[in-house]
Amino acid sequence: MGQAQIGVYGLGTMGSALALNMAEHGFDVAVTNRETDWIAVFVKEAGDLAVRLHPHEALSEFVGSLKTPRVILFMIPSGAPIDAMLAEITPLLSPGDTVIDGGNADFHDTRRRAAQLAGLGLHFVGLGVSGGEAGARHGPSMMLGGSDHSWQQLRPILTAIAADYEGVPCVAHLGPDGAGHFVKTVHNGIEYADMQVIAEIYSLLRNGAAMAPAEIAALFAEWDRGPLKSYLVEITAQLLTYTDPDTGHPMVDVIKDAAGQKGTGRWTVIEALRLGQSASMIEAAVGARGWSSEKDTRQAAETILGGAVGAFDGSTQALAEAFLAARILCYAQGFRVLAAASEDFGWSLDFAAIARIWRAGCIIRSALLDDIATAYQGDLPQGELILAPGFARTLAGCLPALRQVVCAAVHGGHPVPALSAGLAWYDTMRLGHGSANIIQAQRDIFGRHGFERLGQSGTYHGPWWG
Amino acid sequence: MGQAQIGVYGLGTMGSALALNMAEHGFDVAVTNRETDWIAVFVKEAGDLAVRLHPHEALSEFVGSLKTPRVILFMIPSGAPIDAMLAEITPLLSPGDTVIDGGNADFHDTRRRAAQLAGLGLHFVGLGVSGGEAGARHGPSMMLGGSDHSWQQLRPILTAIAADYEGVPCVAHLGPDGAGHFVKTVHNGIEYADMQVIAEIYSLLRNGAAMAPAEIAALFAEWDRGPLKSYLVEITAQLLTYTDPDTGHPMVDVIKDAAGQKGTGRWTVIEALRLGQSASMIEAAVGARGWSSEKDTRQAAETILGGAVGAFDGSTQALAEAFLAARILCYAQGFRVLAAASEDFGWSLDFAAIARIWRAGCIIRSALLDDIATAYQGDLPQGELILAPGFARTLAGCLPALRQVVCAAVHGGHPVPALSAGLAWYDTMRLGHGSANIIQAQRDIFGRHGFERLGQSGTYHGPWWG
Repeated sequence: MGQAQIGVYGLGTMGSALALNMAEHGFDVAVTNRETDWIAVFVKEAGDLAVRLHPHEALSEFVGSLKTPRVILFMIPSGAPIDAMLAEITPLLSPGDTVIDGGNADFHDTRRRAAQLAGLGLHFVGLGVSGGEAGARHGPSMMLGGSDHSWQQLRPILTAIAADYEGVPCVAHLGPDGAGHFVKTVHNGIEYADMQVIAEIYSLLRNGAAMAPAEIAALFAEWDRGPLKSYLVEITAQLLTYTDPDTGHPMVDVIKDAAGQKGTGRWTVIEALRLGQSASMIEAAVGARGWSSEKDTRQAAETILGGAVGAFDGSTQALAEAFLAARILCYAQGFRVLAAASEDFGWSLDFAAIARIWRAGCIIRSALLDDIATAYQGDLPQGELILAPGFARTLAGCLPALRQVVCAAVHGGHPVPALSAGLAWYDTMRLGHGSANIIQAQRDIFGRHGFERLGQSGTYHGPWWG
Repeated sequence: MGQAQIGVYGLGTMGSALALNMAEHGFDVAVTNRETDWIAVFVKEAGDLAVRLHPHEALSEFVGSLKTPRVILFMIPSGAPIDAMLAEITPLLSPGDTVIDGGNADFHDTRRRAAQLAGLGLHFVGLGVSGGEAGARHGPSMMLGGSDHSWQQLRPILTAIAADYEGVPCVAHLGPDGAGHFVKTVHNGIEYADMQVIAEIYSLLRNGAAMAPAEIAALFAEWDRGPLKSYLVEITAQLLTYTDPDTGHPMVDVIKDAAGQKGTGRWTVIEALRLGQSASMIEAAVGARGWSSEKDTRQAAETILGGAVGAFDGSTQALAEAFLAARILCYAQGFRVLAAASEDFGWSLDFAAIARIWRAGCIIRSALLDDIATAYQGDLPQGELILAPGFARTLAGCLPALRQVVCAAVHGGHPVPALSAGLAWYDTMRLGHGSANIIQAQRDIFGRHGFERLGQSGTYHGPWWG
């Protein structure tokens, strides 16, 4: 009879960290890895915690060492490797066992796998884990999609190891099968947008206001003590204080301006579009990363189009307000995507719970999330965050600054794709009468698509059809 | 032995129009339809052209009436109906026969169907057809994806019925299987963006400069005589002259500002993202249409956030220049998506040919396309349209106006998602040094993703890792 309360397959950065976190909280953890040589090294490096780690090289022994009903967490690369491991392990399992994919999976795959395993009487959980290595080791934020049975099995372990915000563990059962991975995907999308906003503001300060990295660091540190407080602001303040040991230059200045991406931001935008939504600030962030990786093209373009930028003479107070408005707008867009998916898949997502579990442990943790959780528990006209009394007021107060900052950027040639996308969305949503009537007229002319008339039901065609 | 040179299955708006176009050009066309009652009505309404139309109710007779190797064009709803008809018709066909899907298909489906039919010795063509009903009837622009064999079979008919630009038929064999439908998809994406730019400019004139529709009509008519000349500008000028027979108001004013969409704009953006591109102006257009359909939310939002907009005091000359810049930028983004797909799928797309066949017949036909065709035949640094000498000069000349217009819009609260997205892309691409270094630093801190250093190869981690 097995002793281990959970098994972790995959002892890379995240798997190792989670296993140690669990061991530290007193759980007996069976561990294994595809490259078996690494297992003993990992256990040795665990020092005192090794007593809680139960290494196995053979998959059957790993499975056999677990208490039943079994709980197995896979922390391995997404995609085909998961399908391969499921094929290998499911014959060794029994009805009632739970298999968890803790990686950044495409939630469509998670739904498929959950259905597949359900057919075998097994439970498949898609667990979104945020917070990087540090989060995994000391307290991640976790988003669980799976059955109630699996949640009952996992709850004691996950609530123990999760980050906590004022005593509330940052983990929740958000819905069935793919709901957890979807929420994690949107978390990552918001992360992209938040980072892009920071990059745009940094650029205005650096290239527009000619502030040195150390000055900008101090400004971000100041912002980290107010409504803009967030993990991303905190690490930006810190990274800007470092000097490159090789050259003596500010570290940020020697890093190539070509951003990589693993894909989750892109997935968020694609899924948003499929759901009939537009997460335009996230799209701006994904686009900006892609264009940044085309550095050769940009350098060639500069010689042809000219790379001058103007001075940015706005105040840092204006930037702070613009930043806050932009952050509210990008979270609002993200939550709209969650709402659309919840509706489409019948998940009944608890948006307040999602906001609460994002308050600590995860990359987008910020002071704003507490306000978002509150907003979802109060009066929320049309279900829209930007219409929550508090946010509507904050936005109204910050919009002049956002306009000023975008104008100054546009005038001076500083690219602000995310800031301008957020503003464009806000200005679209606050106008009860837009200009899509022109589009409808055009579509009726060239495609006879028909249009609606203001204040009437039915579809009409225009007098251009005689 | 069959007499008909081509068979058309599907006598809805587009199928009827194409069949009549072919008959008018002297081709013998077998026709049939799922709802067989309609066939006789269609032939009767064809008047003199009926002598070229050969109606059949039974599929086997329709197939039997065709010259071999047979050519059959399906003009039916996309998706499952095409698969159903392929299942029904393929047993009646012979190796060397060609089946064409002339609808707005998802090019992935077209590739699948082409592979499937190739296994049976049959040829499957994905034909993008643009120009609406009028185009189909009198001269569409057509984008063909399929085998050389099919192109040989179809060329005489398609070149005869296509729109022509200075004697050059607007149809081309663009690549294998899904290439034609993909190019059509991107055409539609560009169409969305062009229409969104028009809507934004219209809004500035109507709500910002308080111009009446008839005045704006005159302005668009003037623009239609210069570098902005295009079908969309032409029909906009026309539609703005109409009065609603019921109320006497300008027609445009009684049309609900809630735009519909069939999905091709969305597909363009999704595919662009999958290919690692960002067609941000098309995404802005897709987003704007989606948000326009949320009119109830917008009306509620206006009562909470306020719907005031400021005066637009820019000149119409500035708007014209901004419009021209925006058009160049949205075409450039569209062609980048084509280039990425061409690379990814190994299609070797001929971009000059695509621009040429878009010069007439299709919805996005404009004076600009001739310049684009020319640009692709000349010196094109980095393969980027915006770096073509002519376009770089035009953009340089127009950018001050684009900045001025976006600033004025932003300042006055007029939503300009597409104009601002285009400008943000331009400003990103012309700067050899961007701000994604901040993003790379952040990613290294929370995910240990590593970054590149300027002027060096290899991946590094920052000093924050000790």
